Amino acid sequence: MFFEGSEKKAEILIDGEQLSLLNDIDDEFWSALVNRSQAQILSSIENEYCKAFLLSESSLFVWSDRILILTCGETQLVKAVEFFIQKFGTKAIKQLTYQRKNEYFSNAQPSCFGDDIKLINQYLPGKAYRFGEMDSHHNYVFHLDNDFTADTDDITYELLAYQISEQASKHLTQPNLSAEEIRQFLCIDSILPGFILDDFVFSPYGYSLNAINEQQYLTIHVTPQMDSSYISFESNVDLLSLAPKLLEILAPKSFDLMSFNEQAFEQKLAALIPIQYVSKSRVCKKLDNGYLVNFANYILPQTTFAEPIMIDISGENHAL
Amino acid sequence: MFFEGSEKKAEILIDGEQLSLLNDIDDEFWSALVNRSQAQILSSIENEYCKAFLLSESSLFVWSDRILILTCGETQLVKAVEFFIQKFGTKAIKQLTYQRKNEYFSNAQPSCFGDDIKLINQYLPGKAYRFGEMDSHHNYVFHLDNDFTADTDDITYELLAYQISEQASKHLTQPNLSAEEIRQFLCIDSILPGFILDDFVFSPYGYSLNAINEQQYLTIHVTPQMDSSYISFESNVDLLSLAPKLLEILAPKSFDLMSFNEQAFEQKLAALIPIQYVSKSRVCKKLDNGYLVNFANYILPQTTFAEPIMIDISGENHAL
Repeated sequence: MFFEGSEKKAEILIDGEQLSLLNDIDDEFWSALVNRSQAQILSSIENEYCKAFLLSESSLFVWSDRILILTCGETQLVKAVEFFIQKFGTKAIKQLTYQRKNEYFSNAQPSCFGDDIKLINQYLPGKAYRFGEMDSHHNYVFHLDNDFTADTDDITYELLAYQISEQASKHLTQPNLSAEEIRQFLCIDSILPGFILDDFVFSPYGYSLNAINEQQYLTIHVTPQMDSSYISFESNVDLLSLAPKLLEILAPKSFDLMSFNEQAFEQKLAALIPIQYVSKSRVCKKLDNGYLVNFANYILPQTTFAEPIMIDISGENHAL
Repeated sequence: MFFEGSEKKAEILIDGEQLSLLNDIDDEFWSALVNRSQAQILSSIENEYCKAFLLSESSLFVWSDRILILTCGETQLVKAVEFFIQKFGTKAIKQLTYQRKNEYFSNAQPSCFGDDIKLINQYLPGKAYRFGEMDSHHNYVFHLDNDFTADTDDITYELLAYQISEQASKHLTQPNLSAEEIRQFLCIDSILPGFILDDFVFSPYGYSLNAINEQQYLTIHVTPQMDSSYISFESNVDLLSLAPKLLEILAPKSFDLMSFNEQAFEQKLAALIPIQYVSKSRVCKKLDNGYLVNFANYILPQTTFAEPIMIDISGENHAL
């Protein structure tokens, strides 16, 4: 079974003095926004700073002055971004960042990054970059081009694990696995002590988790199936420090690390990434909106010969 | 300027006792076959064993009992394969191998491998595999499933170089470069002494070469532009032995090696691949048609941080 785990991601900041997205906007609007991308809200948790919605395809976080939305599969997140712009108007938007990663099955997507930013650009001017090579893991970043400057303490991280170990994949694709069992496997209690959790186990497999603790958030999305496995972590908790633990659990053949505004990115890589991984790609730029963006892709060298993957010719191979 | 250098490739064997593809079939048919894939014949060379056509998108080789055709860009090679099957009938076909590599811009392709083999499978039963990871370099192979067994001395090689050095890319994208200058850069005379050559320089850049020498053939296709550069070599001359020289000239950040029926693949990798490259992927299988297929992907580890690639939002980014 193929599933495109790779997410599109948007973060939109507004002027929080005029309006609180957390307090002044009801759930009906967020539901309509999510629906525009072809996803649905499954559940939510909240604290005084944030409301976190678990979606049928990933997550939406709403703070007073910003939203963060990630959607995977064949959703069209850019339509939700357009819906937000149309609702609040271009003048209300202080900053917008729109990201897309390389996909396993990019030809099955209804649009590509080029299409998406052309649509956003009809409303708002921006700049766009690709971090990472075209023929390998990469991450496209579009940002609004205005006089906004990011706070240096607005630091976020992504850890994207590809091709997790056979053992991890087998464990996470067991039938009727409970959310509690998946939390245990991912060591959630030790990684996220004190967090409010909201998670969902998909059928036949797949898992999503939102976690919030005061102003901290973390979201995990698990596409566990062998051959196209993908586990994503997005957080303002330092995922570089958590990387050794997460890589030990998942043992991926390849992973990406990305951060916004982590000044010690290179030093942390040197100190924290297990030595068996080799750095395939490293890209860095301070964007004009003030965010220092770092991207790194690591691989596990292979010295033995594997069998090829057999393809079912009569099956649904539209994505291959 | 984006161009998809990555080729689709088909090899079709017939029963040579009934018919000689080289002597009994006129060029008009080959021209019609090539046109079906949306490519055109530019020129040809021949000797007593083989006729080699240079195409607007890659190459066609015709021997008495087999053809080899490679087409790149947004061509649909599978339509040429279908045309061949319709002309000669399924019973005439002893073996058919159809390959597609990972593409830089797979979402710009009119079909995917899954679509292509479904079409072939309407005429002929087969088996299909993917050599290499879904999220990285890989090569799909379909082969006809019948009682054919390949000759052990039918040995072929592919070397696919990605992201060649800035120096090589700059050299190969100079305006008004002559074929002779490109041959010199690629050291064709020392690599292919005694071969009959046919080559073409595309505008604004890009280069194709067919070379034959008795029963030996080699074809080179050069997509030199920075950021999506791709240089392919396909031959029954031992490209593993030539790899050190070719890698020295091109200095790619990543390359793939593939071979059919090279028994000493692993030993040659150990002896010949420069130590600065790291093996990211190794896959091997003896197919039911007798071909021993080996695939390996190598990368050059990166220790310094590069700048991201800026994307022209208003440009033609349908492929990104």
